[in-house]
Amino acid sequence: MISKDDERLEKQMDFIRLIDKSKEVYRQTYLTSGSRKENDAEHSWHLAVMAFLLQEYSNEPVDLLRVMQMVLIHDLVEIEAGDTYAYDEAGNASKRQRELEAAEHIFPVLPEDLAAFVRGLWDEFEAAETPEARFANSLDKFQPAVLNDASGGRSWVEHKTSVSQIVNRNGRIEEGADTLWKYEEEILRRHADAGNIIKDREI
Amino acid sequence: MISKDDERLEKQMDFIRLIDKSKEVYRQTYLTSGSRKENDAEHSWHLAVMAFLLQEYSNEPVDLLRVMQMVLIHDLVEIEAGDTYAYDEAGNASKRQRELEAAEHIFPVLPEDLAAFVRGLWDEFEAAETPEARFANSLDKFQPAVLNDASGGRSWVEHKTSVSQIVNRNGRIEEGADTLWKYEEEILRRHADAGNIIKDREI
Repeated sequence: MISKDDERLEKQMDFIRLIDKSKEVYRQTYLTSGSRKENDAEHSWHLAVMAFLLQEYSNEPVDLLRVMQMVLIHDLVEIEAGDTYAYDEAGNASKRQRELEAAEHIFPVLPEDLAAFVRGLWDEFEAAETPEARFANSLDKFQPAVLNDASGGRSWVEHKTSVSQIVNRNGRIEEGADTLWKYEEEILRRHADAGNIIKDREI
Repeated sequence: MISKDDERLEKQMDFIRLIDKSKEVYRQTYLTSGSRKENDAEHSWHLAVMAFLLQEYSNEPVDLLRVMQMVLIHDLVEIEAGDTYAYDEAGNASKRQRELEAAEHIFPVLPEDLAAFVRGLWDEFEAAETPEARFANSLDKFQPAVLNDASGGRSWVEHKTSVSQIVNRNGRIEEGADTLWKYEEEILRRHADAGNIIKDREI
């Protein structure tokens, strides 16, 4: 006979197997080596390490554990909804709806209490209204710029990205971590001067 | 003029760029889809998510934040030392020395306080003497079995792995999380019966 405990563990394990697919959701950012694009699992790992190594740059004090949990799960909906490139206008118009539907399918694979907890983390990240979510969102926007810089700006060149596109989207890094935004401005300035980013405005 | 603050941030960023190489250190475990082998960054991400979804199965109460930090950084030394397959006897004989040397090169890229913190996490994980390190080590041994199971036991078949090899190594999961070890025993039993693992003893 299957006990309640066995059922609970089986649900947890089903979820752990399901999210393995994050390792095959590829983003538009290249690894620093330039050898290939990064996937969601790697991206989320990088953000979680950055959360604890860069926590001193959060504008507000944060519960570090919650920031780390948030960045680790923030892209799970993309298992079903796919990665939407930051500057894909059509994709971004339907993104919210696609991701909400994915959330309804993915999180309830977990036992109810854990499903509610992970859904809560994701909703908080998406709303970006708590200090933890603001810092998590800042890291999520900052990390691709660091990788793009290290890989010679290749992703920006391939997508013909402009300064105003990046600033409109990533300027919000400043709300969570102004030092990191200043660091990114330096990166953008260099790549705009080098012609890797279309210089349609000053930085 | 470069300020002390700029120097500190630059060291943190150098480390964050350096550890990107974890995304290109491949392990012997296949993804659940079987499409390719898993890398260290993905593996570490998976462990960190498992740490908070399975924390109830730790035999002892743990500081979850520390468990998560430990699993996120536990394989960074492999950037230089490479991944050593669990059942590679020659590789495992020299592993400790190679990893200690790598630790001397990698962690000190960080500012001194953070280098000491991350080194402390790694030493604690390696010693496996605290409840946090015992649980982290249990997850590290348990996760590959879950992936091997999901990908049809392929890695075990390719390496002609025996029950006694796995039990000698992974039996220690029981010290950190006996429920997870029972779950793994079921997996091993199935794959031994199916002929994917050499049945040189009972489980």
